[in-house]
Amino acid sequence: MCDWLQKTSHQRPGEFELIRKYFAPLASDPGSLGLTDDAAVYRPKTGNELVVTKDMLAADVHFFADDPPEAIAAKALRVNLSDLAAKGAKPVAYLLGLALQKDWNEKWIERFCNGLSADQSAFDVALAGGDTIRSGNGLVISVTAFGETPFGAAVRRNGASPGDLLYVTGTIGDAAAGLKERLVPGFCRKLGLSQEDERHVLDRYLLPRPRVSLAGAVRQYASAAMDVSDGLLADALHIAKASGVVVELDMEAVPLSPAMKAISSADPQMFRTCLNGGDDYEILAAVPKSDQAEFEQRALSLNCPVTQIGEAYTGHGSVRLKSSSGIVDLEDMSGFRHF
Amino acid sequence: MCDWLQKTSHQRPGEFELIRKYFAPLASDPGSLGLTDDAAVYRPKTGNELVVTKDMLAADVHFFADDPPEAIAAKALRVNLSDLAAKGAKPVAYLLGLALQKDWNEKWIERFCNGLSADQSAFDVALAGGDTIRSGNGLVISVTAFGETPFGAAVRRNGASPGDLLYVTGTIGDAAAGLKERLVPGFCRKLGLSQEDERHVLDRYLLPRPRVSLAGAVRQYASAAMDVSDGLLADALHIAKASGVVVELDMEAVPLSPAMKAISSADPQMFRTCLNGGDDYEILAAVPKSDQAEFEQRALSLNCPVTQIGEAYTGHGSVRLKSSSGIVDLEDMSGFRHF
Repeated sequence: MCDWLQKTSHQRPGEFELIRKYFAPLASDPGSLGLTDDAAVYRPKTGNELVVTKDMLAADVHFFADDPPEAIAAKALRVNLSDLAAKGAKPVAYLLGLALQKDWNEKWIERFCNGLSADQSAFDVALAGGDTIRSGNGLVISVTAFGETPFGAAVRRNGASPGDLLYVTGTIGDAAAGLKERLVPGFCRKLGLSQEDERHVLDRYLLPRPRVSLAGAVRQYASAAMDVSDGLLADALHIAKASGVVVELDMEAVPLSPAMKAISSADPQMFRTCLNGGDDYEILAAVPKSDQAEFEQRALSLNCPVTQIGEAYTGHGSVRLKSSSGIVDLEDMSGFRHF
Repeated sequence: MCDWLQKTSHQRPGEFELIRKYFAPLASDPGSLGLTDDAAVYRPKTGNELVVTKDMLAADVHFFADDPPEAIAAKALRVNLSDLAAKGAKPVAYLLGLALQKDWNEKWIERFCNGLSADQSAFDVALAGGDTIRSGNGLVISVTAFGETPFGAAVRRNGASPGDLLYVTGTIGDAAAGLKERLVPGFCRKLGLSQEDERHVLDRYLLPRPRVSLAGAVRQYASAAMDVSDGLLADALHIAKASGVVVELDMEAVPLSPAMKAISSADPQMFRTCLNGGDDYEILAAVPKSDQAEFEQRALSLNCPVTQIGEAYTGHGSVRLKSSSGIVDLEDMSGFRHF
């Protein structure tokens, strides 16, 4: 429709100018052709295959439109890098699709690209191409990220066997608590969280920390893995179903931040909601018992906290929860079922 | 945010159900892992490299929200296939990002997927993965398409040399005229077009015909190529600038449908607007004179109309237009400059 340039105000750069000024400097890989062509070319290293993922984010659904542009950029990229890490893939490049709302301004683009640039350095990836359009209404970001693994080595959801141990990285529930605070300001204070705890959960919502450094260990040791984005129990169920096992989770072993511990004390129902709220972008991995010591040692050496939270048993794709009050099948716990 | 399912009405399927019921049947390639995982795996054939392109489309910017869902799906896929064909790449797979407006319904998804399915058969591609989210407002579609070429064989914009001939496929301007009719109903009748001509331009706007069959010939014979999406002159200028040549276009040689001929007679100014309106998704290619006969023969055998419309000359990245009234440098023709 060649709409972009015709409808762009004269105070703002057109698409080609945006590419030249802001996006081309991010395209450091030769395969991107400097963003001067209609497509990028790409070839995995000999012996490798590509792992490809695509996550879209919409304003006021996955982030708040008035979040710092640097953080929006980082989140859009990082949720994709999290998927790659959970598959054991080293991230390489990404394509960026940007549907800009009517009132976009150049300063926002500059800050957005600064956010991408910082993350490109942090995670060793480069922009390879993309598309910038005007959206009908509201910002939408679509990132397609490419990683590589040796041929056949990508870690899937479906490889867990009975006896494998379930691990999760980091802590769980913080981002969901941060979202609650964003939606209902005062949420944290009402539950008695400290200012530091409040800052922590807000930060974890705003900026996922994909476990990119753990990708090699996941590839080497995990029989199945995924990142926790839909919620811990929902994602445990994904692995259980794909692998055809029963996953038993020890709810008292789930790693919690001081903030989530405070929420747990103050409001157990809200605690469960946050625990399964998703947006954690931690890695949930099944590891054979024989590799337990080596996996833990490797994670330690990478400064990546991992916690054993469960085990896989013979069965047919379900999750059961163990706590001090006994063992409950997930199907019986309607409070946990938002999937 | 795990927003999708919580905010989805109970009358509509959730994301996992949509994947299972509508998207998974489109994922025929084993690398898609049946859409049961977080990422797809992909490996180009030995000796090949990937050509990757990403085009986004927004409702009421690139298509009308009430267009048939089958046609919206086809357009989203085809504009990407057109890029691949112009690079000489055989299409292989695509990722689909779908940001659905609040009032989406299942029937629309079913029809959208029917459109994808028909095009998958027509163009021999398969869905490899993607993401479905709720948009803040208004449908946005993001397709990332993968093609393959032998290593180093992708045709770029920057290879045209002085003496090369400029070819274009099909006819030019029809889609832009179709868009005019959509925006201002009665446009065609006012200019005296027949009902058949009106149907033709409406159809060309609704459904691009990417020249996928010509990809091999482009790869074999073209020194530079791209698809015509921004408008014939704008895209000729892209090739001229990238290649560092002057492209001279014979305006009287530009291939026109009966509809565009009628517009030309009725309103020369509107004719020029349509001619450069973009959305043609035809291929503009530079071909060395020594390959002229073979290229034309091959295109003929593929039933793909190609027309020589110009030639490249020594110079520095500009376009000049030849017509019965003489030769004009593009820079002097403000009427043509909407880029």
